[in-house]
Amino acid sequence: MKTSALQKERASYQPKLPKALQGAVKIKEGAPTESVDDQDEIKKLFPHTYGMPLVEFVPGDKCEHKLMNVGVILSGGQAPGGHNVISGLFDAVKKLNEENHLYGFLMGPGGLVDHNYIEITAGFLEKYRNTGGFDMIGSGRTKLEKEDQFEKGLEVIRELDIKALVIIGGDDSNTNACVLAEYYAAKQYGVQVIGCPKTIDGDLKNEQIETSFGFDTATKTYSELIGNIERDCNSARKYWHFIKLMGRSASHIALECALQTQPNICLVSEEIQAKDKTLNEIVENIASVVAYRAKEGNNFGVVLIPEGLIEFIPAIGRLIAELNDLLAAHGADYKDLDKDAQREYILAHLSDANRSTFETLPEDVARQLSLDRDPHGNVQVSLIETEKLLSNMVSAKLNEWKKQGKYQGKFSPLHHFFGYEGRCAAPSNFDADYCYALGTSAAQLIANGKTGYMAIVKNTTDCTDNWKAGGVPITMMMNMERRTGEMKPVIRKALVELEGKPFKTFAANRDEWANHTCYVYPGPIQYWGPSEVCDQTTRTLALEQE
Amino acid sequence: MKTSALQKERASYQPKLPKALQGAVKIKEGAPTESVDDQDEIKKLFPHTYGMPLVEFVPGDKCEHKLMNVGVILSGGQAPGGHNVISGLFDAVKKLNEENHLYGFLMGPGGLVDHNYIEITAGFLEKYRNTGGFDMIGSGRTKLEKEDQFEKGLEVIRELDIKALVIIGGDDSNTNACVLAEYYAAKQYGVQVIGCPKTIDGDLKNEQIETSFGFDTATKTYSELIGNIERDCNSARKYWHFIKLMGRSASHIALECALQTQPNICLVSEEIQAKDKTLNEIVENIASVVAYRAKEGNNFGVVLIPEGLIEFIPAIGRLIAELNDLLAAHGADYKDLDKDAQREYILAHLSDANRSTFETLPEDVARQLSLDRDPHGNVQVSLIETEKLLSNMVSAKLNEWKKQGKYQGKFSPLHHFFGYEGRCAAPSNFDADYCYALGTSAAQLIANGKTGYMAIVKNTTDCTDNWKAGGVPITMMMNMERRTGEMKPVIRKALVELEGKPFKTFAANRDEWANHTCYVYPGPIQYWGPSEVCDQTTRTLALEQE
Repeated sequence: MKTSALQKERASYQPKLPKALQGAVKIKEGAPTESVDDQDEIKKLFPHTYGMPLVEFVPGDKCEHKLMNVGVILSGGQAPGGHNVISGLFDAVKKLNEENHLYGFLMGPGGLVDHNYIEITAGFLEKYRNTGGFDMIGSGRTKLEKEDQFEKGLEVIRELDIKALVIIGGDDSNTNACVLAEYYAAKQYGVQVIGCPKTIDGDLKNEQIETSFGFDTATKTYSELIGNIERDCNSARKYWHFIKLMGRSASHIALECALQTQPNICLVSEEIQAKDKTLNEIVENIASVVAYRAKEGNNFGVVLIPEGLIEFIPAIGRLIAELNDLLAAHGADYKDLDKDAQREYILAHLSDANRSTFETLPEDVARQLSLDRDPHGNVQVSLIETEKLLSNMVSAKLNEWKKQGKYQGKFSPLHHFFGYEGRCAAPSNFDADYCYALGTSAAQLIANGKTGYMAIVKNTTDCTDNWKAGGVPITMMMNMERRTGEMKPVIRKALVELEGKPFKTFAANRDEWANHTCYVYPGPIQYWGPSEVCDQTTRTLALEQE
Repeated sequence: MKTSALQKERASYQPKLPKALQGAVKIKEGAPTESVDDQDEIKKLFPHTYGMPLVEFVPGDKCEHKLMNVGVILSGGQAPGGHNVISGLFDAVKKLNEENHLYGFLMGPGGLVDHNYIEITAGFLEKYRNTGGFDMIGSGRTKLEKEDQFEKGLEVIRELDIKALVIIGGDDSNTNACVLAEYYAAKQYGVQVIGCPKTIDGDLKNEQIETSFGFDTATKTYSELIGNIERDCNSARKYWHFIKLMGRSASHIALECALQTQPNICLVSEEIQAKDKTLNEIVENIASVVAYRAKEGNNFGVVLIPEGLIEFIPAIGRLIAELNDLLAAHGADYKDLDKDAQREYILAHLSDANRSTFETLPEDVARQLSLDRDPHGNVQVSLIETEKLLSNMVSAKLNEWKKQGKYQGKFSPLHHFFGYEGRCAAPSNFDADYCYALGTSAAQLIANGKTGYMAIVKNTTDCTDNWKAGGVPITMMMNMERRTGEMKPVIRKALVELEGKPFKTFAANRDEWANHTCYVYPGPIQYWGPSEVCDQTTRTLALEQE
């Protein structure tokens, strides 16, 4: 297999471990915990995994460890560093006992249910150390939530004499990890389940989890590209670049990239929702900045748009909700209509408020909203080209203003969507170290008999030596939320806090960034070189931990 | 002005100069040169700048240099390293005589004509060393080709007592630099003009010019992204990524990226033209690879598409050629027509063969071909969404095969276009050094009284110390070509040579890359670290110079 020069050199990088994880460890337990909300319901649903203490690893005496085989699963979308969680887990498991085995279930949680796995050996692992991607064992989106899946999984767990599963995933996958932990505990199967906080979206974070892995590398990769585009924009001085960024519902990625690159405009879905803005108001805000800059002779700029924006515009959110119900109820007769008839049908059936929202939308977007539900009955927002929608509407608004003599200038928009470019980048030094430490923590949680915990590493804005490692009971992060019509226990998703430092810092500067040109060019991730360049964490994390 | 950590650290990088340019130099002249073709016409058009010798700089004795002020112009699209050409030029000009001044004309050649300029001082230059972008003085696409422009420019040249202009640009801009050099020489104005080979597209290269600057950095940036997408593709195993790459007519960028990343498919326009392939044949070739991989259970892959592809499909190329002439001849009355009338107009005026090609194209593509010529009279190929055109046609073909029982699989395409992401990246070590040496060479050409030359640096696959610097008469690279309906003297564009090593290496491996998954992940450009990672040149250059 041919590999690049960077892959070859990077393979020998030895991730730095916090002092507390470098040698033998013992566990320091805190007080019992409570869930963040709905304590009674969560406690009732998780009688065996509720109320456990936070734990922290501290240096301890070396002791004999019983044999323990471990299974690992990558769940959901890729995030840089997944391979290093597995490396950390592997090295720690082998250090505990050379006879331990690590098994990787293939293509996500489905691998456990279908008994598809490989043994991860030192030789096999070698070429994956410090690499991006989830291709070592693949990932998948099968949801582990049914008892027959748990029982089917148990068969292969028994066959391989596995003591514990490590599930590397986002909020939903960790919720499911906890349900599985509870199930195996209730059945007294003696199988532990440990979670690991993964997602580039940055929305799996709370008092205990400072950041999810991959967020650092992905936002640095996007910021490299945004900075390059800003420099192009500032050189050619003739385009407005509309850049949509992956990140699902939350705007963490867009906000972090804005803090790194200082674009002219960055939309934050959470703020738009809180201020109850309409699409037209958003368009007017953008157009005002375009017009102001044009007056200064600057017919160029950069706009960042979070992927989930459309659902957070309250009027559109309400429209989508009614459309979901409408299409679910009338799906069959609706389907056979032609395009125009479908539009008529929808207009005839919508409530007044939502009808007028629907009518203000460009026809192709309106159509997109009335089509293509995913298997859960939801609009596929990632298919809506919000970046083009906005630039088209801005263009129309500017033409209107031009006729009214309120605007003179040229508006040439270009469009980008960044997502797949960053999910599998080779992990930054931060993510390489952080993930390796998470994997090591997971191994120690297993060795110490824990289940229903997520591995955590804290104090991550300090030097690696001083990072603190441990575990948090997953139930502690849960509350009850409505999902597909039912109340379910889930880990609370972290949206951008409008009172938090990252947003406030952005808000305090954005007018200057809009009116002037204050671009910052972060450049590509560096793995070698000055520490200031290679080892900086995200602005979000630095500001939150300040 | 806020700058990133990388910008701060990178500012202090001192580009390496070849030994021959480190101290005082003298000039070694070769034999008189001839143009690559159409010698009689070129000689007649350039009586004062034709037939001059190649020159090389060798160490010489330090001597007094007369005062010489220099003007510099960035022309056309951005390429990483432009600022370093200016840094090299500045340092060399000041080293020749502290009293020399360097002036930068603003926003491209238009700055000369309109007398917009700034003086480039040491303090001003500081923050631009080793940075990407052309924002130091801006760039533009105004063509310098008319005598009144030359005369208007002369006014400011006299006012600032400028001895020579350095025009940093691609093939067209260097052609124009030569026309200007010839004009000033013919008029005995005593103003020299020197060109510099800039373009990420890599199509300004020949026996004398090993590579144009920016190609190295841009292809590394695109290869980083392609590699990241390949890793994502190989992890998720469910998408086909269609990636269009900037690069105008030539496929050098796509080919170089293919050599770096080993995608499943890379189209090479020059081969498609040589083999006289139709759009349908191209689609069938792609669909066959998709079908083969599907049979192996691999419903994923990566396809690279050169931006200029559409023009190289012979039938479409003939259509575009006729459209170019048609629109050049009937531009004014055509412009005022509405969309449908324009289509009618074109159909009415095209020859039979081209009309039937025009009619087979999807309407939006047909329309794109009949719109928006750039200032050089060329179709703006970057606006044609070839990546979507191809994936739609592949999808239709696969559906056909599915009905015939010839294909079973899932085909989910995703689309990307990379261009603006790489044109302004911070220059790689190679481009930083190469550009600095080009700027130094330009200064020495001026000091030695040359005009109508392009600065060159050769032997660039050896260590920097051993690079050779000098100049090549621009007329030497010229031939006559049809442009906007007339025969004009132009620098011959270098397309991908199907007999050259880079293409042959690709061709020898592509079946394996198509059928198996041989992705290579180059990762982001590194400025520090192991030399193997930081200082490697492109595969194209390495293979060509082997």
